[in-house]
Amino acid sequence: MTTDRKRRVGILGATGAVGQKFVELLADHPWFKITAVAASERSAGRAYGDAVNWIGSTPLPGGIAGMPVSASEPGLDCDFVFSGLDSSVAFEIEGNFARSGLPVISNAKNYRMQPDVPLLIPEVNPDHTRLIKSQTFSDRGYIVTNPNCSTVGLASALKPLYDSFGLTKVIVTTMQALSGAGYPGVASLDILANVVPHIGGEEDKVETEPQKLLGKLTDDGIRYADFAVSAHCNRVPVLDGHTECVSVQLAERASLDDVRQAFESFVSDIDDLGLPFAPRPFIRVLPGAADPQPRKHVSMHGGMPVWIGRLRPCNVLEFRFVVLVHNTVRGAAGGAILNAELLVEQGYL
Amino acid sequence: MTTDRKRRVGILGATGAVGQKFVELLADHPWFKITAVAASERSAGRAYGDAVNWIGSTPLPGGIAGMPVSASEPGLDCDFVFSGLDSSVAFEIEGNFARSGLPVISNAKNYRMQPDVPLLIPEVNPDHTRLIKSQTFSDRGYIVTNPNCSTVGLASALKPLYDSFGLTKVIVTTMQALSGAGYPGVASLDILANVVPHIGGEEDKVETEPQKLLGKLTDDGIRYADFAVSAHCNRVPVLDGHTECVSVQLAERASLDDVRQAFESFVSDIDDLGLPFAPRPFIRVLPGAADPQPRKHVSMHGGMPVWIGRLRPCNVLEFRFVVLVHNTVRGAAGGAILNAELLVEQGYL
Amino acid sequence: MTTDRKRRVGILGATGAVGQKFVELLADHPWFKITAVAASERSAGRAYGDAVNWIGSTPLPGGIAGMPVSASEPGLDCDFVFSGLDSSVAFEIEGNFARSGLPVISNAKNYRMQPDVPLLIPEVNPDHTRLIKSQTFSDRGYIVTNPNCSTVGLASALKPLYDSFGLTKVIVTTMQALSGAGYPGVASLDILANVVPHIGGEEDKVETEPQKLLGKLTDDGIRYADFAVSAHCNRVPVLDGHTECVSVQLAERASLDDVRQAFESFVSDIDDLGLPFAPRPFIRVLPGAADPQPRKHVSMHGGMPVWIGRLRPCNVLEFRFVVLVHNTVRGAAGGAILNAELLVEQGYL
Amino acid sequence: MTTDRKRRVGILGATGAVGQKFVELLADHPWFKITAVAASERSAGRAYGDAVNWIGSTPLPGGIAGMPVSASEPGLDCDFVFSGLDSSVAFEIEGNFARSGLPVISNAKNYRMQPDVPLLIPEVNPDHTRLIKSQTFSDRGYIVTNPNCSTVGLASALKPLYDSFGLTKVIVTTMQALSGAGYPGVASLDILANVVPHIGGEEDKVETEPQKLLGKLTDDGIRYADFAVSAHCNRVPVLDGHTECVSVQLAERASLDDVRQAFESFVSDIDDLGLPFAPRPFIRVLPGAADPQPRKHVSMHGGMPVWIGRLRPCNVLEFRFVVLVHNTVRGAAGGAILNAELLVEQGYL
Repeated sequence: MTTDRKRRVGILGATGAVGQKFVELLADHPWFKITAVAASERSAGRAYGDAVNWIGSTPLPGGIAGMPVSASEPGLDCDFVFSGLDSSVAFEIEGNFARSGLPVISNAKNYRMQPDVPLLIPEVNPDHTRLIKSQTFSDRGYIVTNPNCSTVGLASALKPLYDSFGLTKVIVTTMQALSGAGYPGVASLDILANVVPHIGGEEDKVETEPQKLLGKLTDDGIRYADFAVSAHCNRVPVLDGHTECVSVQLAERASLDDVRQAFESFVSDIDDLGLPFAPRPFIRVLPGAADPQPRKHVSMHGGMPVWIGRLRPCNVLEFRFVVLVHNTVRGAAGGAILNAELLVEQGYL
Repeated sequence: MTTDRKRRVGILGATGAVGQKFVELLADHPWFKITAVAASERSAGRAYGDAVNWIGSTPLPGGIAGMPVSASEPGLDCDFVFSGLDSSVAFEIEGNFARSGLPVISNAKNYRMQPDVPLLIPEVNPDHTRLIKSQTFSDRGYIVTNPNCSTVGLASALKPLYDSFGLTKVIVTTMQALSGAGYPGVASLDILANVVPHIGGEEDKVETEPQKLLGKLTDDGIRYADFAVSAHCNRVPVLDGHTECVSVQLAERASLDDVRQAFESFVSDIDDLGLPFAPRPFIRVLPGAADPQPRKHVSMHGGMPVWIGRLRPCNVLEFRFVVLVHNTVRGAAGGAILNAELLVEQGYL
Repeated sequence: MTTDRKRRVGILGATGAVGQKFVELLADHPWFKITAVAASERSAGRAYGDAVNWIGSTPLPGGIAGMPVSASEPGLDCDFVFSGLDSSVAFEIEGNFARSGLPVISNAKNYRMQPDVPLLIPEVNPDHTRLIKSQTFSDRGYIVTNPNCSTVGLASALKPLYDSFGLTKVIVTTMQALSGAGYPGVASLDILANVVPHIGGEEDKVETEPQKLLGKLTDDGIRYADFAVSAHCNRVPVLDGHTECVSVQLAERASLDDVRQAFESFVSDIDDLGLPFAPRPFIRVLPGAADPQPRKHVSMHGGMPVWIGRLRPCNVLEFRFVVLVHNTVRGAAGGAILNAELLVEQGYL
Repeated sequence: MTTDRKRRVGILGATGAVGQKFVELLADHPWFKITAVAASERSAGRAYGDAVNWIGSTPLPGGIAGMPVSASEPGLDCDFVFSGLDSSVAFEIEGNFARSGLPVISNAKNYRMQPDVPLLIPEVNPDHTRLIKSQTFSDRGYIVTNPNCSTVGLASALKPLYDSFGLTKVIVTTMQALSGAGYPGVASLDILANVVPHIGGEEDKVETEPQKLLGKLTDDGIRYADFAVSAHCNRVPVLDGHTECVSVQLAERASLDDVRQAFESFVSDIDDLGLPFAPRPFIRVLPGAADPQPRKHVSMHGGMPVWIGRLRPCNVLEFRFVVLVHNTVRGAAGGAILNAELLVEQGYL
């Protein structure tokens, strides 16, 4: 690709938790440069540094602090936008931007399951971006989405298995970090030294998005992968990193070594592209008896790999293992940035 | 029963975490009175209040603080003993006490799976105490055990289902409290704001004990129940209370209402006995969308019920739900005390 | 006193965190019976059990769950009200109730420093209730307040020292529990594994209320005690219990033993009254080298004592020690209930 | 300085918590290269990666994992050693190394208060290294120490004030992170959702080390600075970062602006030396009303600055403020590395 100039990027929902993560992760991006930050009416017109309640543990990048916050309306000075919008407003605003002719790389859930919108993990289904051509927002505007933060870990872990052996059944129990609920999110009185065994709307996403992600692109759109997922979603007092206990039934016979081999030797279609946010390797299998652990592994390698541990036979389905994913990096802003990098590489941006 | 006098009770491992819970829970027991506390050589001879590092959040009962700590050898001044011994020493010491003629009501794992030792939850398998008669320790000494703390919650929840519909498959993911690891147990640096997806030896217990608990007592001993359990065991930063996400496959057809009805209308064989530590009801189904929660429910009703919530269909097996159990009360000391109450009622004590 | 009938009690702000604590603590009160629960417009008309997001770890008392929530306006069916109102509305609503002829026993800050309103800790300044007579709300209506939750611990600990030796300087650093911020209060992302070294408005209260509490009632009102307090207030990830590190300079010469003696032998003017919520003793000095600790001690004896530990000389001022107080019991609802008990005893209720 | 070759470094106590931090921080150091790792008998002979229970959240540096662990005896292949030894063995082992002719840059407490041993914070008292010349361990061996982790934050914050206005009194209350207790350190059952208002031996160090650090080097050794420190030390459930609430009395009259100016304009004697681990600036004053906070700031700028916030008048002493320091970086391994860098610059290494 031509990197003679950096793409100019706008951030929708820039003062929210996901928006802040976009700002943090794009600080030194080699291809992208933030030129616009948009937020709600309340923040519009103020300097970003004043409007934001910066929750990161890295300093707010200097160049952004003084940038004026724009209203969330088309007309931003940028080549495309990342959206960290809340789902309560994302449908309309993202649609407006796409109709205005701008590509929208979104983390919101609203368009994920639309037939002509790619639900994208570059290492899993990079060809699904072809759906963009069937979108009708405008000549040049379109929407690409990344999955729910728990789905990202699960679907990424399932990818090598599905490719090698097929899949029929998946049971997953998640233990999800606080940052997945945004800010202010979960009240401390609700979660300190506690587990909340329910996250509104989450189980439905985890049970339906993987089949689209692992689906096959046909002339009639995505033909969903045919396996059942049952998800138990829990909130735990962890800051970053969703841990997932997974049991799977494969479609074809495979030994434990076969499965391990499938994880460890997995090479994705984008591994050779040199995308800046692409981890190498994508799937990392840990040997430790008690790994992966959110506090120990989640920030390694930029938070972009998907971690797997404790692979072993299951007494009920065939195999089981533990997955860990950084929910706000790989599972949100970082994943969206990698999506944009793929789109640049593929010529869509 | 005759309560004209209180049984005199000894506590083995009295200074450990489980031992302390025995001391705390027996403080005002109507049938039992602590007359001996035994611990390791290091503590023997000292006053209990000096030897113990009391970790409870209720005061150390006054009458016990001055009691001299005995060595863990037969000859204690009591009618029977509760054992909170560590499994590294329980096999020998508990055996010694049983051989010396004392009943041993144990929380340790060592004898649980012995064919002639009852693995007992009074509401689940009260008839299994008949195994005592086949024990050969001595004329009057015997051993009765309670299950692993996670098993207690799981097997109790499975009981109504197994009785009503039979069971074929169970997948459970536990999120277990710190107190389950004893004291000092888990290092704070390992678990604060973290999840550790492994607990040594735990999964094996949860996968094998329920079949004995729900097994049928025959003339040849326990015929194990025939279902498969797969357990994913995790440590989470919670103080008390194991939360368990369960998916089950029943042997017979049942509707969601049938299953709910089985839980809600469950009456155990001991419900009418008036045992002091028996909760009424034993199984408590919560209606809240995000219940049960350890911090919210675990100490209600003395920590003795088993809590169930979020009953719903499962996409892979048939039904799923969440179980909560107080691991150091119902899952350890409180469960053992209820075992002793049953044994009194049945004439074994 | 005559306990031939229970006083009928209304709760203002009944669905909030403090209001819930009133409901919980009054469940079995020998003198008081809840007959009305009032909350905001949004809740009025609904059953309390439906309107409240019950955050307690004890069950919502059955008798209250079905009670209809009233609007926060005079006319409630009760003899007096407890107020757990937020300070943003307490000034007006409490005033309205007092003007309507009802005694208001308030936990809000609004009237605390009014010259004719008692700021009351029964063990510290029971005579200050005489200020009620100078109030002009109405014939029978009046307002009595309890101090800020951190102040309660500090002023109670200072009381024996002030009485025995006088005081000139106090420096206190608080480590305050989450429940002090109400619900939802502090965001979990802000406080998990963190310290926030600031609590809005708190230092000012801790620095000014003790002088009124320890002040002398004269014909011209309270003559404030003459000592300086410097407070550093911090929020820490603790559920209940404010821990306070205190250094003091006494007005008169005293030895460490004198000070210890003053704490340990302190007898308050209400100790013989037999008030149901009055702890005996009020001040509890712990010998443990690392005590008091919130999780260990805060709920002992109903959460009503003030705990003191680590008494030792100070290198800068004269003595230092650690204070622990249950912020939502002794420091809020429980303290207010004890205030009401004193008022009954004194004939004001 | 000449950087034509990297100094060869040995780590004593390399498998402990501080030792691991040395390994982590030295991974890419421009001047130093680890050539030897020493630990207890139990680990000696094993590969470091096998012997260590790596607790970091960054990967164990590849080059070190295969390095054989040596016994803690002179004869290591290196130019000098960093010591992360436990104080129970540090006196003897560090002495042995110094006597053998190797410089020992130590984090242990044992030699800190010896008259001829520098207790060093490069930005505070870089000239104290001259004490090395009076040491008599051997021709070329000597010992240099860094202060207690809480002292580092306090003494660094006091430095600009002491230099500008003199000091007479300091009261400090610390809220200290778990990592300060090493590994396994504090039991999770002791500290989750709790505060422990005592840390063995800590207050004594915080009360005596600052006077040596701010002391004046004379021909007769260090003349201690003449001010009193009173410390209340607490453990809180924070992973990294000691937060300290400080009240000070200055020797000379100063306004709040003078004090702020002293902090903000502080330039240390080493600021121009370009030492790799020296933060620029050293003292960072934060404007936020609730800053500094451990989770928010402690890892910024490599964990090497000392953070100050909430500067305001004190009602009892003159001024008060909050200090934050990264206890295992600036307060331990990182501070020792900076000490070594200064010694290189000064020609001692």
